[in-house]
Amino acid sequence: MTHADNPYERALDKGPANFVPLTPIGFIERSALVYPQKTAVVYGERRFTWAEFHARSRRLAGALAGRGLGVGDTVSVMAPNVPEMLEAHFGVPMSGAVLNAINYRLDADTLRFILGHAQTKLLIADREYSKVVARALDGMSSPPVVIDIDDPLCEHGRCIGEKDYESLLAEGAPDFDYRYPEDEWQAIGLGYTSGTTGDPKGVVCSHRGAYLNAIGQILAFGLSPRSRYLWTLPMFHCNGWTYTWAVSATGGMHVCLRAVDPARIFSLIEEHEISHLCGAPVVLNLLLHAPKEVKRRFGHRVEVATGGAAPPSAVIEAMSNMGFDVTHLYGLTETYGPTTVCAWQEEWDSDDVETLAGRMARQGVIYPTMQALRIADPETMVDTPWDGETIGELMLRGNTVMRGYLKNPTATDEAFRGGWFHTGDLGVRHPDGYVEIKDRAKDIIISGGENISSLEVEECLFRHPKIMEAAVVARPDEYWGESVCAFITPIEGQALSEEEVVAWCREHIAGFKIPRTVIFDELPKTSTGKIQKFFLRERAKKM
Amino acid sequence: MTHADNPYERALDKGPANFVPLTPIGFIERSALVYPQKTAVVYGERRFTWAEFHARSRRLAGALAGRGLGVGDTVSVMAPNVPEMLEAHFGVPMSGAVLNAINYRLDADTLRFILGHAQTKLLIADREYSKVVARALDGMSSPPVVIDIDDPLCEHGRCIGEKDYESLLAEGAPDFDYRYPEDEWQAIGLGYTSGTTGDPKGVVCSHRGAYLNAIGQILAFGLSPRSRYLWTLPMFHCNGWTYTWAVSATGGMHVCLRAVDPARIFSLIEEHEISHLCGAPVVLNLLLHAPKEVKRRFGHRVEVATGGAAPPSAVIEAMSNMGFDVTHLYGLTETYGPTTVCAWQEEWDSDDVETLAGRMARQGVIYPTMQALRIADPETMVDTPWDGETIGELMLRGNTVMRGYLKNPTATDEAFRGGWFHTGDLGVRHPDGYVEIKDRAKDIIISGGENISSLEVEECLFRHPKIMEAAVVARPDEYWGESVCAFITPIEGQALSEEEVVAWCREHIAGFKIPRTVIFDELPKTSTGKIQKFFLRERAKKM
Repeated sequence: MTHADNPYERALDKGPANFVPLTPIGFIERSALVYPQKTAVVYGERRFTWAEFHARSRRLAGALAGRGLGVGDTVSVMAPNVPEMLEAHFGVPMSGAVLNAINYRLDADTLRFILGHAQTKLLIADREYSKVVARALDGMSSPPVVIDIDDPLCEHGRCIGEKDYESLLAEGAPDFDYRYPEDEWQAIGLGYTSGTTGDPKGVVCSHRGAYLNAIGQILAFGLSPRSRYLWTLPMFHCNGWTYTWAVSATGGMHVCLRAVDPARIFSLIEEHEISHLCGAPVVLNLLLHAPKEVKRRFGHRVEVATGGAAPPSAVIEAMSNMGFDVTHLYGLTETYGPTTVCAWQEEWDSDDVETLAGRMARQGVIYPTMQALRIADPETMVDTPWDGETIGELMLRGNTVMRGYLKNPTATDEAFRGGWFHTGDLGVRHPDGYVEIKDRAKDIIISGGENISSLEVEECLFRHPKIMEAAVVARPDEYWGESVCAFITPIEGQALSEEEVVAWCREHIAGFKIPRTVIFDELPKTSTGKIQKFFLRERAKKM
Repeated sequence: MTHADNPYERALDKGPANFVPLTPIGFIERSALVYPQKTAVVYGERRFTWAEFHARSRRLAGALAGRGLGVGDTVSVMAPNVPEMLEAHFGVPMSGAVLNAINYRLDADTLRFILGHAQTKLLIADREYSKVVARALDGMSSPPVVIDIDDPLCEHGRCIGEKDYESLLAEGAPDFDYRYPEDEWQAIGLGYTSGTTGDPKGVVCSHRGAYLNAIGQILAFGLSPRSRYLWTLPMFHCNGWTYTWAVSATGGMHVCLRAVDPARIFSLIEEHEISHLCGAPVVLNLLLHAPKEVKRRFGHRVEVATGGAAPPSAVIEAMSNMGFDVTHLYGLTETYGPTTVCAWQEEWDSDDVETLAGRMARQGVIYPTMQALRIADPETMVDTPWDGETIGELMLRGNTVMRGYLKNPTATDEAFRGGWFHTGDLGVRHPDGYVEIKDRAKDIIISGGENISSLEVEECLFRHPKIMEAAVVARPDEYWGESVCAFITPIEGQALSEEEVVAWCREHIAGFKIPRTVIFDELPKTSTGKIQKFFLRERAKKM
């Protein structure tokens, strides 16, 4: 049927009554309307209701607009999980500008690169980072205006900006008449990937994608108006996996947290009856291995979502005994944070914890808000068989894949070749359709021509009762090409020898996978808790 | 900033990796992938897994496409809540065609009008309605092809079509390679409003709106993969309030039901541990007043969503005692079904049932997937004060408002005047922002110059322990202009006099609102359980 003959294409157009761009801005608007007096944000002694949170975000938007900032401009924020960071997630997009949440553990050089690349017009920075910020700005030809977050709970740094955040808010009106994006494809966020080599890449997210991914989190993690979400995951990390927006969509409660401190986490869980929290595996380990005197028994269950590495069975079981139910999510900055979930099957209800851990180690299936996933050969784009064995690259398609990398069409085209987003993660597809990441492409160790998954060896090490964390990398070897090199952090106070480690591995994995080198040390991590294998690889090379 | 200067508008375009039209089609695709062996549909002795449900929907799409049906074509279905109707909700859109689900209680003349107006190419009709279908087709110059649903559980009618539904499915392949809509604005559904006067209007729904409203139902009603949804609400009614798609998005379970029979409902609730069901108030009344021998005590709670009229406190309390938790939703065919919810506030937890019923009588606040709501003067478009008293028209805006009325631009323009969808419902806005419908514009009774809300009088009557149902309309009155006329159905076996009714009203409402005429009789209803006040008004006129 031609368009002209189609009765469904006549006088049935989009208009203000039936079409509105999708954007998370509407979430806070609705929660302020439905739950105006309900507590939205808790931080130390501070409390903001939904009406206040909304009004403060509008003030921020008004202040930015008053300074001439809007569509196409970047506002950067370098802050821990404080209310100002949450407000920026609404106030910046309400002004039309793009929010660039920056990793607060970055060095001055990287920060300078990001501010320049993003063409940041205004930087809101917590006083704690004043030194590194000052150093970064020092070398810039046209540095951004700086606004200080002057938090009484912060014991470090000094104010170095034009004014403080509260004074900035005072420039804007609480009823500032913000606009929606003209097009839902418009950019809402810019997040730099923590690339271990080369310059960071700026991932551009749209209003549409942010809206849909936030809905995806609600569905995957079971958020509701009664949810009380504790901010153990950095908000700069994929906009806090879009939970900044998701929790706001439900009208639940944000409980902010300046630093990941186990004692503080346990007491907040008890005090606010926290229902949900997210974190890298290191957060789970911190809770598990917290000193006895800070641990608390609480009378409810806490849902914990983790990603970045599969939680070992010992961790799942020990967390469960402490009151935490662990869900395994997977995603990348390029997918707005988590976008797959190891979805529970009812028949697992009766599984023992070992079997369960095996199932839950998998990254699983796509969210309802993602479109499709495949494991395929990145060259031929042919799918691998669903045999749980054949390794291919994990690829994704859908509305919650980034728009692309800012000012980097080459990297964008490379990431999207063949019409799929190439994650760079290698994995298998199980007969039930669930995917399991086996390694990053660069993390595979090839020893004597055999592929060794560093993840498999790490999984084995993790299960050792005296091991807190472990990372495995390739060490150049004249005879084998590469050999397995393990870096291990024992649990505090536990004595552990190389012989014990090797004996343990001999019991659990194939001989050629046993580490030939074992080093006991702390592991270098990114600010999001990811182990920086790059540095370990460098160390292994020099040994 | 001009578009050309905007770094966020360079080489960051939509492509297959990061943009997919929103459509409910993806829901069944994902559930078939994630839960292939899980039961998706239960009907009598029949069971379909998610893989089978998906494959059957693909067969249907393939069969339709094989017959040359696609974009711009209408496929009508006239069926009770059987699996074929669910399959049509996916198979028809997968073929590109538009699904027109038809009210099975319509007369031949109206049916003929609809089939002609919709330009239906193919009609799938349950054998039960063969008489009325045959009569409707009889007068058509180019009648659609008819396919029979030949259900062994149906005891009436005969096959009158080209072939039966299973034979149609056999024309299509279970792996038919369906396409997504090119544009998410494309029509997915056409539903005719049951106008009490004039020709029915054809409401056109888009893939985008259906996707978003289904998500809205999941959020408002708390659906999850463990949900077991009982089909007490007709699927032809706004596509079953979009629960056809919503339940499929979660991977829950559909339990089909041919007719609303309390005995069957109670036994299905027990057998399948039903977690959710929807229905007009009449369904609640049927359950409440079911004979003792069919009622069951079950060990779990059932969430019940109702709409169309506020549930009286006695109903809420009695339902709760029977194991049902009632939620009050509101919407229209033009808004894809429910789009507001009387959202629960935590401080209500401690309210007594009378106070609660007052709160819950309100239609509440918009879903997160709707954009905005207002109560305003339809002429001036000025908002009424939030005083719980000043009456205005309820208006809505958002992505879950229809595209418009098919081939009726005048009605579309009228409905969308001023950039808002005019519901035609009159209500107030309470100080907490919740809306409460007081009446349809035409249901207001004006007696001696005073406005009387028929709903208020009905609410009062509903609370009488001997009254099952009541409807109040205007009766022409020489002196007062109009007077209040009440039609009442007492609970079976209960003797009730006019004097008792009047005495009850005198206790509870103002004197001028007391019915001057009381008639005991059954109430005429639409197929969706709405009382047809039109007929009552006609009766009152002739008295």
